Amino acid sequence: MDTVVVTDVPRAPLDAIDRLAGYGVATVHEALGRTGFLGPGHRPTHLGRRIGGSAVTVLCWPGDNLMIHAAVEQCRDGDVLVVTTASPCTDGMFGELLATSLQARGVRGLVIDAGVRDIAELHEMAFPVWSRVVSAQGTVKSTAGAVNVPIVVGTQTIRAGDVILADDDGVLCVPRDEVAGAIELAQARVDKEEAARAAFRTGQLGLDRYGLRDKLAALGVRYMTAAEYGTR
Amino acid sequence: MDTVVVTDVPRAPLDAIDRLAGYGVATVHEALGRTGFLGPGHRPTHLGRRIGGSAVTVLCWPGDNLMIHAAVEQCRDGDVLVVTTASPCTDGMFGELLATSLQARGVRGLVIDAGVRDIAELHEMAFPVWSRVVSAQGTVKSTAGAVNVPIVVGTQTIRAGDVILADDDGVLCVPRDEVAGAIELAQARVDKEEAARAAFRTGQLGLDRYGLRDKLAALGVRYMTAAEYGTR
Amino acid sequence: MDTVVVTDVPRAPLDAIDRLAGYGVATVHEALGRTGFLGPGHRPTHLGRRIGGSAVTVLCWPGDNLMIHAAVEQCRDGDVLVVTTASPCTDGMFGELLATSLQARGVRGLVIDAGVRDIAELHEMAFPVWSRVVSAQGTVKSTAGAVNVPIVVGTQTIRAGDVILADDDGVLCVPRDEVAGAIELAQARVDKEEAARAAFRTGQLGLDRYGLRDKLAALGVRYMTAAEYGTR
Amino acid sequence: MDTVVVTDVPRAPLDAIDRLAGYGVATVHEALGRTGFLGPGHRPTHLGRRIGGSAVTVLCWPGDNLMIHAAVEQCRDGDVLVVTTASPCTDGMFGELLATSLQARGVRGLVIDAGVRDIAELHEMAFPVWSRVVSAQGTVKSTAGAVNVPIVVGTQTIRAGDVILADDDGVLCVPRDEVAGAIELAQARVDKEEAARAAFRTGQLGLDRYGLRDKLAALGVRYMTAAEYGTR
Amino acid sequence: MDTVVVTDVPRAPLDAIDRLAGYGVATVHEALGRTGFLGPGHRPTHLGRRIGGSAVTVLCWPGDNLMIHAAVEQCRDGDVLVVTTASPCTDGMFGELLATSLQARGVRGLVIDAGVRDIAELHEMAFPVWSRVVSAQGTVKSTAGAVNVPIVVGTQTIRAGDVILADDDGVLCVPRDEVAGAIELAQARVDKEEAARAAFRTGQLGLDRYGLRDKLAALGVRYMTAAEYGTR
Amino acid sequence: MDTVVVTDVPRAPLDAIDRLAGYGVATVHEALGRTGFLGPGHRPTHLGRRIGGSAVTVLCWPGDNLMIHAAVEQCRDGDVLVVTTASPCTDGMFGELLATSLQARGVRGLVIDAGVRDIAELHEMAFPVWSRVVSAQGTVKSTAGAVNVPIVVGTQTIRAGDVILADDDGVLCVPRDEVAGAIELAQARVDKEEAARAAFRTGQLGLDRYGLRDKLAALGVRYMTAAEYGTR
Repeated sequence: MDTVVVTDVPRAPLDAIDRLAGYGVATVHEALGRTGFLGPGHRPTHLGRRIGGSAVTVLCWPGDNLMIHAAVEQCRDGDVLVVTTASPCTDGMFGELLATSLQARGVRGLVIDAGVRDIAELHEMAFPVWSRVVSAQGTVKSTAGAVNVPIVVGTQTIRAGDVILADDDGVLCVPRDEVAGAIELAQARVDKEEAARAAFRTGQLGLDRYGLRDKLAALGVRYMTAAEYGTR
Repeated sequence: MDTVVVTDVPRAPLDAIDRLAGYGVATVHEALGRTGFLGPGHRPTHLGRRIGGSAVTVLCWPGDNLMIHAAVEQCRDGDVLVVTTASPCTDGMFGELLATSLQARGVRGLVIDAGVRDIAELHEMAFPVWSRVVSAQGTVKSTAGAVNVPIVVGTQTIRAGDVILADDDGVLCVPRDEVAGAIELAQARVDKEEAARAAFRTGQLGLDRYGLRDKLAALGVRYMTAAEYGTR
Repeated sequence: MDTVVVTDVPRAPLDAIDRLAGYGVATVHEALGRTGFLGPGHRPTHLGRRIGGSAVTVLCWPGDNLMIHAAVEQCRDGDVLVVTTASPCTDGMFGELLATSLQARGVRGLVIDAGVRDIAELHEMAFPVWSRVVSAQGTVKSTAGAVNVPIVVGTQTIRAGDVILADDDGVLCVPRDEVAGAIELAQARVDKEEAARAAFRTGQLGLDRYGLRDKLAALGVRYMTAAEYGTR
Repeated sequence: MDTVVVTDVPRAPLDAIDRLAGYGVATVHEALGRTGFLGPGHRPTHLGRRIGGSAVTVLCWPGDNLMIHAAVEQCRDGDVLVVTTASPCTDGMFGELLATSLQARGVRGLVIDAGVRDIAELHEMAFPVWSRVVSAQGTVKSTAGAVNVPIVVGTQTIRAGDVILADDDGVLCVPRDEVAGAIELAQARVDKEEAARAAFRTGQLGLDRYGLRDKLAALGVRYMTAAEYGTR
Repeated sequence: MDTVVVTDVPRAPLDAIDRLAGYGVATVHEALGRTGFLGPGHRPTHLGRRIGGSAVTVLCWPGDNLMIHAAVEQCRDGDVLVVTTASPCTDGMFGELLATSLQARGVRGLVIDAGVRDIAELHEMAFPVWSRVVSAQGTVKSTAGAVNVPIVVGTQTIRAGDVILADDDGVLCVPRDEVAGAIELAQARVDKEEAARAAFRTGQLGLDRYGLRDKLAALGVRYMTAAEYGTR
Repeated sequence: MDTVVVTDVPRAPLDAIDRLAGYGVATVHEALGRTGFLGPGHRPTHLGRRIGGSAVTVLCWPGDNLMIHAAVEQCRDGDVLVVTTASPCTDGMFGELLATSLQARGVRGLVIDAGVRDIAELHEMAFPVWSRVVSAQGTVKSTAGAVNVPIVVGTQTIRAGDVILADDDGVLCVPRDEVAGAIELAQARVDKEEAARAAFRTGQLGLDRYGLRDKLAALGVRYMTAAEYGTR
């Protein structure tokens, strides 16, 4: 492991991040050609939050949160802490005291590929967390790791300074230099969806709106009544 | 795969379905001799809903929700959409736009053996969903499947027109022609449970009420004090 | 299996249990040298509860809750029922009627290494449950097991009369004769954490408070800027 | 549960079953339009066997193998025993003594949605088994179930008399009345594959043989060199 | 965690252990009333071995095998090393060099609730291993744990000096002072099974041998032909 | 998704790859500071093979192997095909016909983050495969993906041209430009291990060889006899 703390990581402009976050994870994921989603493994401890921020990445040894402490110093206003471990780990590597430190620095939340604890207290202080598990199991501070190196979380490679969006649908990573483009694509998608929503409310079918009837026929899908189907 | 859309599926009377749904999943499951439960894998995205309806079944290719669009047209007031995939899939195959279409047709909710997304929006519009996972991962519309053919979801075979009940305890499938009988059995069970509940509140034991003391003895269960047990 | 019901199990004083429970699972776990946590597999059906009590242990056959009925009689005010099965089981072995009986006896809640059902009703009656799964699947009452023998739940051995704490972070087991010591250790930890919390709020870093900068250096962790790191 | 033992189940002709089994699970699955596979959860305890036979189905209570004993009597030469449980179970519900009985009746093997034990002995006596797990955990004989009713195993509904094929790739269910057609389709597929295999050995590409270059272009797939890709 | 190395642990006589091991895991598990099995999670890296020995227990920190090195010194001829971690871990905590040390001391094999590596080399040197996973992931030697304290592995509590049996069906723990009794019970079971095996080979049914026909009737199991069943 | 096929990817020299592969996955992983291992999820279908090669990477849609066909053309002598899917997938996306094509081009094996089939045939033709699962489930050829773009497999980011090593312990990724250095480090480790192995065979302890006795003392580990420990 490359035991290094990388400092002075470039971030995307915070107002652009905030604007992108407003579209939500599913919309931005679709707008970017269905890329960037970390997979279904990371869930919020409590539903109802939506955040965006710049990734400060942490690579820890399993059962050891030493490098999270090193990472706090690298965090600034508008960041999201993203933590993984060198091998699978379910321990509660993060709790309310670390969140207090992060909140004092303006950090918006935590994404962790391991466990978290003190979740009642974290909810009370409105510090949102997306994790694989919840676990009271404590950790030591004994082994070196890395801060702000590229890490793999779920299905994505996350680099320090990448933009992280998270809400009830999960967590998304948008490369730092794609934020501006992503806003445009997301807005276009939202416009298109709004028109579809209005049409669907009045009874139009996706089959017609998206021209899927021809596709079904081309794929050989047949229609028959239950009576006909039952007699086969 | 039999790529067919079956139409004109017979349903059970909606008032009977509603009456049955009122008993809840666990009670009806017990009343029917402990049958019909789909297993512990399907969870509501938000707790606190209880629905019943007629199954419109959908078999999709993994990563592809084309057939859900075809199924919308087959849905009517009082239906529940039940979706599975040809092989295990965790993608977010269903979201708020599809729910808008379904809600416009009077559909009561969704049971899906895969993932769902836009869950904050679905909760806001009061469209309940039971799924294996939540995932923002999007899908394509490229491959044929089937609508209203028998499908396997968890431990059950579901046929179009079967009655689906779902609440915080999970999802139950009741064959269409057993609804009337199920109501009788469920009511009998509820009556019996109410009497037991009253007795338990005043301190009667299940051991006595259900005559289990003799069974324990017949099975060879012995009683001893902690002091006696510790000395062995 | 040793088919026995052990009676007259000694308990810890209830006021001490209540005092210990107030510190929460994560704090007591840390105070006891990071021991006693059952692991991340047991989750509350609803968030927001914190309980403590004396364990009444139950060993059931999978798919069979006969011994839970036998255990009810052994419960008294301030107890927590702890249930496991002879081999892995996800059935809903416990529901609202059993909870009615337990609540009438002053039992504070349930920890179960299997499934539970009627969770809407359990929530309504304020009977808290920590379980591996939720499942409507019912069980029979046919096979002998044991009450108040030592059982393994997750990563811990639990003996009848051990103190069980449970909250949103999971479930902890404290040996009966360690309760007094645990209160002292937990209070000391809370005092220390309160000082740390105040310091973190004003911007002190854990790196400095815990003296971790020297450790990072000793472990060979280097600092470099993103520009330097990128050029390697 | 419908506690019944169904007798005198019609089977497909054994010579047709044997011929179909010779094609292997993957080939027949493809030939039937990618249907009938039970999913990736059922693995042989030892690699290298390929069998076919008529399903005798068994539905057991978890932790209880009473109905397997009832099923033995319903087995005849050329059958495959297919066992599931009312809810998920990992116990070793089947071992060498039951296999001795089955082998004496000409049964070809076992497919079980639970656990199996005595696997060294089963391998020595050449009785092949496909199971979810291996487990020494024993079971009781206390609770009723059913024999030869339709059961769900993995993603398939299996009816008594359906044809079961199993090899290193897993387990397939072919409806009894589709065996003759399946042989024709499988033979056609084998012929086609043999020609493809010969062409691939001499270097022809699937891109050309299957006409996929146009499809890639139509889907918008671009080609670029690593040098070009790297500069973007 | 109680960071201690316990020395001079009493063992059962090696000849008795060897005799017990000869019966195999499933047989001894049954003979002891279906107790002691660690559950289906621990599998041999290669099939075909059967061992027995006295447990030397090790509790490690996840990602850290320091205490395995401490445990080697406590091992003697006829021992089996049994390793777990303070929280779930899949790392390859044990490999060929440690096995070389253990083999030099007469240790019979390893049971580990985590991962193992160098499995080709371990197989070549005939050192058998039962583990949850195989993983090349390496570990550090930084954190204290314990040797020869009671540990939980799967569903069992294992104490130093307990007798461990392991074969293709999994791993069993027999308390040290029950070895003599276990041999008697296992021999009785083997005798009984041999008679059953002979009877089954000649076609007797378990239904008759175990008197299960009456039980089926008492449980309400009905027999009907497929023709009758189909018409319902 | 960036639907592109990248051509003319630079590779490491094949003789260097072969030399590195000879050290085995666990040794090279350790030599590189415990980096590069894909995690415990990828297992060989048959034990006993050890390969090395240059990665040709493939990103497929779940249930769709179109891009594997596109990738075959990009493979050359000494390559290893590395396949993942846009979201989790267990289908048998690769079989004997594709292996025939790859073998004709000198490809050494397959690493796939999904399923594989025809494993008996693949074993017979000596084409080694590491996969998450085995599954007969077939796929379509309908949706675009990418070849030779960076992909995430398990815990690693793999770039086209990276060196892949695989054996019974799992799969390792070594960046292309680190091969020469890795050989030196692996050789140094092998030399060191050989000396340790010889010492361990004659009874030296790791405690002494690695100087761990002082560390144990510094960490506060105490030694006591079983008699002393038992009396506490």
